[in-house]
Amino acid sequence: MISNESLKIIPLGGLGEIGKNMTVIEYGNDIIVIDAGLKFPEEQLPGVDLVLPDYSYLRENRDKLRAIILTHGHEDHVGCLPFLLRDLNVPLYGTRLTIGLAKGKLAEYLPLDELELNEIDPRFDLEIGPFKLEFMRVCHSIPDGVALAIHTPVGVIVHSGDFKFDQTPVDGVTTDFSKFASVGDRGVLALLSDSTNSEDEGFTRTERSVGTVLNQIVAQARRRVIAASFASHIHRIQQIMEVAHGNGRRVAITGLSMIRNISIASELGYLRIPEKLLVPVEKIDDYPEDQILILSTGSQGEPLSALARIASHDHKKVNLRRGDTVIISATPVPGNEKSVSKTIDQLFRGGAEVYYESIAEVHVSGHGAREELKLMINLVRPKYFIPIHGEYRHLIHHAMLAADTGVEKDKILIAGNGDIIEFSQDKAAIVGRIDSGAIFVDGLGVGDVGDVVIRDRQRLSQHGMIIVVATVDGSTGKLLTGPDIISRGFVGIPDSAQILEEAKRKAEEALLICEREAITDWMLLKSHVKDSLSKFLFAKTMKRPMIIPVIMEV
Amino acid sequence: MISNESLKIIPLGGLGEIGKNMTVIEYGNDIIVIDAGLKFPEEQLPGVDLVLPDYSYLRENRDKLRAIILTHGHEDHVGCLPFLLRDLNVPLYGTRLTIGLAKGKLAEYLPLDELELNEIDPRFDLEIGPFKLEFMRVCHSIPDGVALAIHTPVGVIVHSGDFKFDQTPVDGVTTDFSKFASVGDRGVLALLSDSTNSEDEGFTRTERSVGTVLNQIVAQARRRVIAASFASHIHRIQQIMEVAHGNGRRVAITGLSMIRNISIASELGYLRIPEKLLVPVEKIDDYPEDQILILSTGSQGEPLSALARIASHDHKKVNLRRGDTVIISATPVPGNEKSVSKTIDQLFRGGAEVYYESIAEVHVSGHGAREELKLMINLVRPKYFIPIHGEYRHLIHHAMLAADTGVEKDKILIAGNGDIIEFSQDKAAIVGRIDSGAIFVDGLGVGDVGDVVIRDRQRLSQHGMIIVVATVDGSTGKLLTGPDIISRGFVGIPDSAQILEEAKRKAEEALLICEREAITDWMLLKSHVKDSLSKFLFAKTMKRPMIIPVIMEV
Repeated sequence: MISNESLKIIPLGGLGEIGKNMTVIEYGNDIIVIDAGLKFPEEQLPGVDLVLPDYSYLRENRDKLRAIILTHGHEDHVGCLPFLLRDLNVPLYGTRLTIGLAKGKLAEYLPLDELELNEIDPRFDLEIGPFKLEFMRVCHSIPDGVALAIHTPVGVIVHSGDFKFDQTPVDGVTTDFSKFASVGDRGVLALLSDSTNSEDEGFTRTERSVGTVLNQIVAQARRRVIAASFASHIHRIQQIMEVAHGNGRRVAITGLSMIRNISIASELGYLRIPEKLLVPVEKIDDYPEDQILILSTGSQGEPLSALARIASHDHKKVNLRRGDTVIISATPVPGNEKSVSKTIDQLFRGGAEVYYESIAEVHVSGHGAREELKLMINLVRPKYFIPIHGEYRHLIHHAMLAADTGVEKDKILIAGNGDIIEFSQDKAAIVGRIDSGAIFVDGLGVGDVGDVVIRDRQRLSQHGMIIVVATVDGSTGKLLTGPDIISRGFVGIPDSAQILEEAKRKAEEALLICEREAITDWMLLKSHVKDSLSKFLFAKTMKRPMIIPVIMEV
Repeated sequence: MISNESLKIIPLGGLGEIGKNMTVIEYGNDIIVIDAGLKFPEEQLPGVDLVLPDYSYLRENRDKLRAIILTHGHEDHVGCLPFLLRDLNVPLYGTRLTIGLAKGKLAEYLPLDELELNEIDPRFDLEIGPFKLEFMRVCHSIPDGVALAIHTPVGVIVHSGDFKFDQTPVDGVTTDFSKFASVGDRGVLALLSDSTNSEDEGFTRTERSVGTVLNQIVAQARRRVIAASFASHIHRIQQIMEVAHGNGRRVAITGLSMIRNISIASELGYLRIPEKLLVPVEKIDDYPEDQILILSTGSQGEPLSALARIASHDHKKVNLRRGDTVIISATPVPGNEKSVSKTIDQLFRGGAEVYYESIAEVHVSGHGAREELKLMINLVRPKYFIPIHGEYRHLIHHAMLAADTGVEKDKILIAGNGDIIEFSQDKAAIVGRIDSGAIFVDGLGVGDVGDVVIRDRQRLSQHGMIIVVATVDGSTGKLLTGPDIISRGFVGIPDSAQILEEAKRKAEEALLICEREAITDWMLLKSHVKDSLSKFLFAKTMKRPMIIPVIMEV
């Protein structure tokens, strides 16, 4: 029974990486989970669409699982839900907008009436099993975000969610200093805090400062304005709409996620759209060019997004014109630098004036910088500190910063996904490790892309492939027809016809040797052909194409 | 004869992109070329190792080609030479270090004694055909760089090379203000100037400032120091060596290009290595840890580089230890952000203290920022201005900046690779376009990777492939054996066995229909199988694997 009296925190995602945030809190026979996010794959994962945390621990402990609590509505905190909820029907809890956005997403995948979606009001506490949850409002690049104080039999765990301390937020809702301070006064066992910007000195600028810059740009634009941002950044969208309104421009919206999120957020009262501001995107030509602002998705240069289509003159309803002003009010998510840069270039080529982060202050981060991270620690004054949400180097810098603010060094735990952090009243330690890692979503398949598939794809993409086709007599091994060579993604024009011709002869030689030696063992035959071709092609081209002998017995 | 009296400038690379810089200057029957660089491929070019400018224009005009002038020794200015000089034996001109570095590279590919390599002394002019060349020294992230004033019968063309105005350069050789001013005084028809940093406000910091920061870091390091930088950045290497020396540390060098460049640069007198400073990397353990600094390649996180191997405990002679201090004294080249970030994380995981650009001022750019670009224009005071070396957006910002400094707007020409810019005494214009673009180097093949190959590789890497194998009777179309299905890079575990089984049945159905309809037309048969499988697999998996029917007639 000893292990049952301890509290376990098990991060399933978000540690040592940006994205797929998910944390298990377990006491005795009860588990709650904070967030269930996804991340987008890196180049090393060709063809993979999404990456999910491996939540097999929850499947194995489904009878203990009581709830998933969502801190806010970003994909890296809620994006795993459509997949997880297929396996495990567990009650969800989140603030009004968070649940609203999650619903919008879930409706595409699952029948909503079979799910338990619970709106919480952050002013009131929530009891789930042995846990009592207090909610603290936090500012972030999406409204209605919360941090949690989880009261457990062992002590209070504070989970920061994603936060910044914006002193002048667009909706007037500041991060709840006093509630954090009050929780801190009552004594906190451990703080789990957002490390994303732990390398950035000072304070993150207020969201409102972006509005000022946007207003300057829009005020001096003489023709149409096209503004792209994250579709979930309701405050940014609010500011863009106000700037448009103030400058006598109507707003047209393009991009599915932008349309959906604006409709949800305005319905729930998180977005106040001035009357008669919106016009359908089909109608923009009914207005003078200097009275139109087009609000668009595609701030990451995603090839199929509205902005990328506008830039490449491939959008059905909006065509870029010379003299348009384009504002990319976002930062490239790591890995997207090249595609954003490509979109910017295309916009310039199309004759637009383009404003983006590196030349104008059209974006601020939603995560707190180092001074804000220190403030969080000083408000909460935890005994133990666990940096979460960040690459390993972000966790390290956050840990050093925590030590600077006075957390004892041996009470700072740098953990990884899958680590079991066990707390008793008087100590905490990483005591073990569960299977963790990633599930790949590939087309309609979830978890059905193994390492072999990824390795094959990498090889195919780097080296191409060669198929050797022949028929042999099954009893004698005599070569009947072929060999023929089919190649894909292998070297092209000048020398290659000749190389493939020689390759054919090499394959033939190998097959004739087999014939002479009356080799009829399938595997042996194939491996002879493969080896001899592989050696030959590497010597000729320095490439190692995948070689597939298709040798048929007749 | 009219066209012969005009001067033509044709950029073959470096405009609308970062890298593969190359510019043709043509008058009458004479052509000189400035630089011949390469660039590294983007992710969209799977398997491609290098990208070269398409220099078929030079091949077609080989009888006019007089010389290639190199502004400095970076790969994006000289890297095309090993390939180009195989086709075209043309005299090379460059400063001492530039030629030295080019030699080191060329020796791997070509017999040096058959090449015409000419060292120039920037103090003296050079006459080549109708052109007189004056050289101006410039500061950059490699020593011995020059800009050119090309005196032509039509007027003077200034080519800036890559430059910054460092007021306190490490080698004491500043950008030659007075010579630029003197050229400007005598009248300049056109300035071609480096646009790389045209988005950056102010002045680029002096290289020397990096030395100060490096010294602080090394002075407080208690165990070994590992410093990674660009192998061609001789000034940075000089500073690292001086810092090591000043702090009582010996220096061991690892990484082939680092070893080669240090040897060339010190032989030619561009690098002054304090006596007894160097120790072989095998001997580092003979010294106390706080008396060793390891100078390494791999500042871009390249998977096979020395630093990446050290970080992943895969280096033969240096193993990362807890407490090592690692300095990455470089910036990630666009596209390398992820691999650098991965290396940093690995180093932290190995227990190192890691310093890099985003948390410490351990790097400065070698390119001038906006105030320096303005200074260049004001010194040279050209009639025409052509921004070079940069993505399209850099060219645009450089053009706007030139207009601010007083260049007339209609005399600013934003050109692209392949544009023919024609100058007569009284006007200049883009009058046409030659074939330009890129040559891909892939394994040992040059130029033999066409668009089809790249497209195939992209598809293979995203969707994998399916081979359908069957034999049919050639005269009746009767299915004899198969179909069998071979898949690679397609979906893996749970459902896929079942999907492939169904796919097999689909292929069989298609073949049986052909049998029934006595279709013996090969193409038709294959396309039936392909279409029916393709539809089925997309519906089941949202994937479009490459489908290759191998149907043999017996």
